Amino acid sequence: MLENVDLTRNLGDDEYKKNMKILEPELGELQRKAWELKIPIILVFEGWHASGIAESINRFILPLDPRGYYYHTINAPSPSELLKPFLWRFWTKIPVRGGVAIFDRSWYSRAVTDKYRPEKSEEELDKCLDEINYFERQLTDDKYLIIKFFLHIGKKDQKERLRKLRKNDIPLIVDEYETRCDKPDFIHEYDKYLPIIEKVLKKTSFPNAPWTIVEASDQNFASAKIITTVMEAIKDQIEIVTRIPARDTIKYLDNGSPKIPELTASVLEKVDLSKCLGPEEYKEALKDYQHRLCELQYELFRKKRPLILAFEGWDAAGKGGNIRRLVKELNPRLYRVVPTGSPNDFEKAHHYLWRFLDGIPRAGHITIYDRTWYGRVMVEKIENLCSEEEWKRAYREINEFEEILANSGAIILKFWLHIDMETQLKRFKSREEDPARSWKITPEDWRNRSKWEEYGEAVDEILRRTSTSYAPWIVVEANDKRYSRMKVLKTVVEALEKELNNNDGGS
Amino acid sequence: MLENVDLTRNLGDDEYKKNMKILEPELGELQRKAWELKIPIILVFEGWHASGIAESINRFILPLDPRGYYYHTINAPSPSELLKPFLWRFWTKIPVRGGVAIFDRSWYSRAVTDKYRPEKSEEELDKCLDEINYFERQLTDDKYLIIKFFLHIGKKDQKERLRKLRKNDIPLIVDEYETRCDKPDFIHEYDKYLPIIEKVLKKTSFPNAPWTIVEASDQNFASAKIITTVMEAIKDQIEIVTRIPARDTIKYLDNGSPKIPELTASVLEKVDLSKCLGPEEYKEALKDYQHRLCELQYELFRKKRPLILAFEGWDAAGKGGNIRRLVKELNPRLYRVVPTGSPNDFEKAHHYLWRFLDGIPRAGHITIYDRTWYGRVMVEKIENLCSEEEWKRAYREINEFEEILANSGAIILKFWLHIDMETQLKRFKSREEDPARSWKITPEDWRNRSKWEEYGEAVDEILRRTSTSYAPWIVVEANDKRYSRMKVLKTVVEALEKELNNNDGGS
Repeated sequence: MLENVDLTRNLGDDEYKKNMKILEPELGELQRKAWELKIPIILVFEGWHASGIAESINRFILPLDPRGYYYHTINAPSPSELLKPFLWRFWTKIPVRGGVAIFDRSWYSRAVTDKYRPEKSEEELDKCLDEINYFERQLTDDKYLIIKFFLHIGKKDQKERLRKLRKNDIPLIVDEYETRCDKPDFIHEYDKYLPIIEKVLKKTSFPNAPWTIVEASDQNFASAKIITTVMEAIKDQIEIVTRIPARDTIKYLDNGSPKIPELTASVLEKVDLSKCLGPEEYKEALKDYQHRLCELQYELFRKKRPLILAFEGWDAAGKGGNIRRLVKELNPRLYRVVPTGSPNDFEKAHHYLWRFLDGIPRAGHITIYDRTWYGRVMVEKIENLCSEEEWKRAYREINEFEEILANSGAIILKFWLHIDMETQLKRFKSREEDPARSWKITPEDWRNRSKWEEYGEAVDEILRRTSTSYAPWIVVEANDKRYSRMKVLKTVVEALEKELNNNDGGS
Repeated sequence: MLENVDLTRNLGDDEYKKNMKILEPELGELQRKAWELKIPIILVFEGWHASGIAESINRFILPLDPRGYYYHTINAPSPSELLKPFLWRFWTKIPVRGGVAIFDRSWYSRAVTDKYRPEKSEEELDKCLDEINYFERQLTDDKYLIIKFFLHIGKKDQKERLRKLRKNDIPLIVDEYETRCDKPDFIHEYDKYLPIIEKVLKKTSFPNAPWTIVEASDQNFASAKIITTVMEAIKDQIEIVTRIPARDTIKYLDNGSPKIPELTASVLEKVDLSKCLGPEEYKEALKDYQHRLCELQYELFRKKRPLILAFEGWDAAGKGGNIRRLVKELNPRLYRVVPTGSPNDFEKAHHYLWRFLDGIPRAGHITIYDRTWYGRVMVEKIENLCSEEEWKRAYREINEFEEILANSGAIILKFWLHIDMETQLKRFKSREEDPARSWKITPEDWRNRSKWEEYGEAVDEILRRTSTSYAPWIVVEANDKRYSRMKVLKTVVEALEKELNNNDGGS
């Protein structure tokens, strides 16, 4: 993509100024319109070192309203960011709907710098590019506008520019609290990295998030090209979102393949809810497993593996009590319980997975989600809080999301706490009668109960479509609280023992 | 405070369990009440190393609703936190009203570890304790409940506990991404740090935020003492906030000292608004000063000094245009413009200074606030958005806040852009007539204009009471835009040249 770029293109100062006088107010106007229409915009600036990225961005943001844009310089990850999945620090920075997020370097620079090792195969980089494609597609599917620029200059030109910077003793603003200098740095080695950059650009240029190569030998030309490209893209997006929404009125086309009986059979129906555990046996086993989990948490920490436990289940299935038994003997410095309620307005103004990122554990830590992102394909689907198109693609999106977490080393276990309707009724009533616990029962609980069958079908679908090798579902028979608690504890302990011992050859 | 503590106190397992069965649901109930009454609670856990802080916290949080508490382990500051003021990372973590923030170690451990140097005088530590007292008083004045625990054990006991931890190979969770080991560590050297800890406890024990010494030889006793202390404190606070608000009906008692004419004379009235600058002179000077500022930003960066520029002024006084000229030639990696509007609900649910912390620049960076925390003593005062008591103490609070910033090395300049009523009217009208700029004028602008005199008095009061050596106000004659822009640029450039050259002996 960089081969036939004409690097002689330029624009005189007077002509540039004349153009800008017209374009700048128009850009400001488009920004305000995008804000009103709640179009989120992501601008990615990449390019050779010394290609003028900072100056290009400064010229671009001057006409913008500072209330609407967020500027992010992407340097080397901080020590704590290094303990999170690669995409985490970018995903957390996606703009609120209507806002513009400007990335001064991005996941692309970091993919090359952090994942590409010249001496090794390119497998790690390729995997990372796959994750990036997941990430960008999820966003553009959710109507985020992504515009990516690569500022291109020639090798000689770069050399001359670097000489000037050194002469004027301009400090590098990147990596200001980064002391490690042992990493490869593609921005300096032009010839060596040219093919890698070509590859990255090719592998990540899709119609939903295309690259624009900017001829950056001349700053005026580059700035004018950037501003006009952004303006065109915003205009197109405004056109798309304000068009009569014909797409939404067309019924979503299911692929219509005949359902295979084995796959559609209800998993839940087959669950043996009579399973139970005696109090004596429970008491002893509980102590034993809590103790083992306590030791395993330190092993997780030593091996820098994150653990994610996801809890879903019927109302009153015992999620809270279950979680309390899990963490009873744990070190609060290593675990965190993240409860999930309805999203607030600010959360709603982002991609639906965004609000779960805050809880993603650092390597060596544990997060327990009390309800999760599966709300998308349960309550949001059933209560029509999202469109059919949205929940239909959510299964894939969730699998991708969990794959990204697993790629980062996370151990993921998902529990569905299963009870029958009678047991729920008994528990609802006993809660209502107990003044200390009556606050736990709300009209919403009764309403959900009335949609038992719909929820059951939704759960079956979830179990079928999102139980993966890297993030399996475990259905827990939860009519008997003791049995349920022990099953969860035991599953976690055994999974950790297996996973953590396997990893260093069984020592 | 630690001298006469009876470390033999203990509680048997059975008695402990019996007590907890009663106390735990009560604590849960109190937490819910505090949530309903919007009481924010800050719990500080300090103590000797191996005194059982983590276990005490875990026992404490088990009965809590995870939706209402936020747990913070305070380790060594990260590299980027090191570039912020000392208190910054704690201040950003204050809880939303109704929430409980639990600090597992806190500003106290960090004050001793980061600020106390055995070989030096204790001046730095003392200064830090003063800041801590500002911080806590501002919060308790704002009805935050602060409860501080120091878990005390004997020297021999500690030695034995540390031996056991080592034997069981339990990793230290503190400082997991901290490689520097050259720092003094008070948690290990009992005798050496005992007097320092005594001093810190004494200097920071006030009725509004007292210390509770916890006899921690016995974990059961410690846990019971912690839970009952918190419960009593919450009950007291509930009593205070639900009492018939007699205090609020008593007119705020001004100290009634006779006003000294020199001090009360209007500063604004004396401003010479006829000052102006010709277009040619402006054009040349603008280029020159923008160029100098461009160079100075790198000098700020090299010397790791943060710069805070605060802009206030009449509507249409030209803040936006002024700021654009300031940043025209700057590197966007080094500056940030932070616009301030009305606080949103989440921001309102915190101390009023909280929302400004996000913008505080790292050392070496620049933040330009377009409107600031002075809204407290302008619009919030005039529109009765806060109580008289609140805005009256805000002058002191703001001075303290800016002192804390200055202590961290920040250069602070505050600009009041002054125009007269006629100029404002002219500009309002010209904006309204221009379709590209008419969005800039809102009914609120006209309403503010109708309260010109009140605002003028408020500004005079601000200039008198908050112009300090470390954060001076500069009144800018802004009827003439060119003059105004040049005065700001010149003031910034000259202040930086003076400050940055002074610092290394004028080199």
